[in-house]
Amino acid sequence: MSNPAIETNENTLDRYDRIRPIRWTGEALELLDQRLLPFTVQYLCCDDSDAVAEAIRSLAVRGAPAIGIAAAWGTVLASNGVDAIDGPSAAVALQPAMQRLDEARPTAVNLRWALNRMRRVLEASGADWRARLLAEAAAIASEDLAANRRMGELGAQLIAPGSGVLTHCNTGSLATAGYGTALGVIRAGVALQRIDKVFAGETRPWMQGSRLTVWELQQDGIDATLIADAAASHLMKQGDVDWVIVGADRICANGDVANKIGTYQLAITARFHGKQVMVVAPSSTVDMDTPSGERIDIEERDPGELLGVSGSRTVAEGVQAWNPVFDVTPAALIDAIVTEKGVVLQPDAAKMRVMFDA
Amino acid sequence: MSNPAIETNENTLDRYDRIRPIRWTGEALELLDQRLLPFTVQYLCCDDSDAVAEAIRSLAVRGAPAIGIAAAWGTVLASNGVDAIDGPSAAVALQPAMQRLDEARPTAVNLRWALNRMRRVLEASGADWRARLLAEAAAIASEDLAANRRMGELGAQLIAPGSGVLTHCNTGSLATAGYGTALGVIRAGVALQRIDKVFAGETRPWMQGSRLTVWELQQDGIDATLIADAAASHLMKQGDVDWVIVGADRICANGDVANKIGTYQLAITARFHGKQVMVVAPSSTVDMDTPSGERIDIEERDPGELLGVSGSRTVAEGVQAWNPVFDVTPAALIDAIVTEKGVVLQPDAAKMRVMFDA
Repeated sequence: MSNPAIETNENTLDRYDRIRPIRWTGEALELLDQRLLPFTVQYLCCDDSDAVAEAIRSLAVRGAPAIGIAAAWGTVLASNGVDAIDGPSAAVALQPAMQRLDEARPTAVNLRWALNRMRRVLEASGADWRARLLAEAAAIASEDLAANRRMGELGAQLIAPGSGVLTHCNTGSLATAGYGTALGVIRAGVALQRIDKVFAGETRPWMQGSRLTVWELQQDGIDATLIADAAASHLMKQGDVDWVIVGADRICANGDVANKIGTYQLAITARFHGKQVMVVAPSSTVDMDTPSGERIDIEERDPGELLGVSGSRTVAEGVQAWNPVFDVTPAALIDAIVTEKGVVLQPDAAKMRVMFDA
Repeated sequence: MSNPAIETNENTLDRYDRIRPIRWTGEALELLDQRLLPFTVQYLCCDDSDAVAEAIRSLAVRGAPAIGIAAAWGTVLASNGVDAIDGPSAAVALQPAMQRLDEARPTAVNLRWALNRMRRVLEASGADWRARLLAEAAAIASEDLAANRRMGELGAQLIAPGSGVLTHCNTGSLATAGYGTALGVIRAGVALQRIDKVFAGETRPWMQGSRLTVWELQQDGIDATLIADAAASHLMKQGDVDWVIVGADRICANGDVANKIGTYQLAITARFHGKQVMVVAPSSTVDMDTPSGERIDIEERDPGELLGVSGSRTVAEGVQAWNPVFDVTPAALIDAIVTEKGVVLQPDAAKMRVMFDA
């Protein structure tokens, strides 16, 4: 594969990036209500932190980075009613509200990570705590966007001109401050004319591919073709896909990746067809304390998600279903892990240590 | 894998076989309306051949063998209004009605095959043509059921006691005269206590697994667990599946198999995990005139099937989708092809010739 030098400029990369799911007005937090997509584009206006917690709980906002950012702004909203002489006093006063934000989605790592950042800022602040809290929330959002842009550039450099790509779930602007992780690489790859064809899997049972990913790409003028999850191998055999590009919920110390159910299957069939697999996620997703994927408990969600679609039941009463949410793709099936810190090709424990234990 | 001798008797195999989608009353044809399943069990009563043609066209009856049987009985119904002195005269009189049956589903091989059998009988009959036509329709149905029972026994013998199996689409009683092809092997395997666990994939976009297969197994008292198509690899990694057991729409001279989209993906991932793949289909499915799967045109159906579920739209307007109906699994990924004529292990052109060119 020959990769001519990329001529990047901000305008090129900006071209396909119009969606912002989280807007801070200065007085309130506006969240693009993802429960209503793709048919209704409506921002939910949150005036206080409990409204933000409820938006997280009810999936109006989803995607690990986006949830963390929303919780940071939720903390700022909570501070409106607090009158404290310094940061540590404010931290005590804000504790109940932050606790409710923390509990809104028990398994979201980024939620905790963002709230911890906010708490540390408070503990280090004096009388200026309010301004510093606001600045930290803004920083969490802008750092996420910058990381996504950086990953987009790094990932796109791996892709040869004229390539076709297949993605899974939604890892886009909707799941982040903007631009996205795997979808960020796809945005950059399209902008830089390296990607000619984009395919998206439906992603049963929640249909994030159908409902969110193809809508999001459509908004930004990127043509994408939806396929059934089970059609991926047939697509690869036809030769229309060069890269499978996905996000990650957790990346282990040896490069194993936990991600949305179906990722593992895509990686197996990509290897079978000689296609490549790229995992794109911020370095906060890398968990050097988990040695390998075997140690990850895979969350199983309500089997009811498989028993109907969009609220209408399709399966007979009394039928059992098994609904694991994630699966683990072994590092040996991954060609590149892209983070804002850099790219690990053919990941293994030694290469991961060099990049992330520094 | 050790396979102790199977002690088979009719009662054992009968235990899990209660559904009959096609009932001949002597005066009318009753078809279990598959559009209403799994929530309403209702037989559609067809009094004339055009009603049967409409039932085939509208998918009230589906599954290649079932369609062929329905068309045979439709020909009998058409003969009610015909007064002919011998079979050849009756064949001429019946031609328009048989033509309408033939055109009800243009790509169904078994439909044509069944109507050709009926036509040949007419052409060979004298004044007794009416009785012989009736007998031929009954024979097509009973031969299908017998073939399925035979395949069930043959296939079950390949399965070690305590096995888990995964199936795809619906290949059961609902798709045949009864008992089913791949589901017939599963019925036999459960009856003979070789199969402990049955999993069924949803089979997007038509959801035959969700709507039909798990319902059908439930009716016969067989516990089955539904999974998202994309969860199959994760399931195999956990070790709960020993065999993938599927049907076939066409089997080529070299053992390549065209079947419902997603079959190929299951075969790739089964091989990756060291699991086995069994294809179960009547010998009428074997097409020795097609040398390999590369020669098969894969039908693509309306992309609209991916844009909504159960009539409610889930995808934004203007989004493209790609909806291939079948895929081709190369013989190299198949461990056994089971037909009523016998089993071909590790199929290739030479072994297929021995079994099917006799």
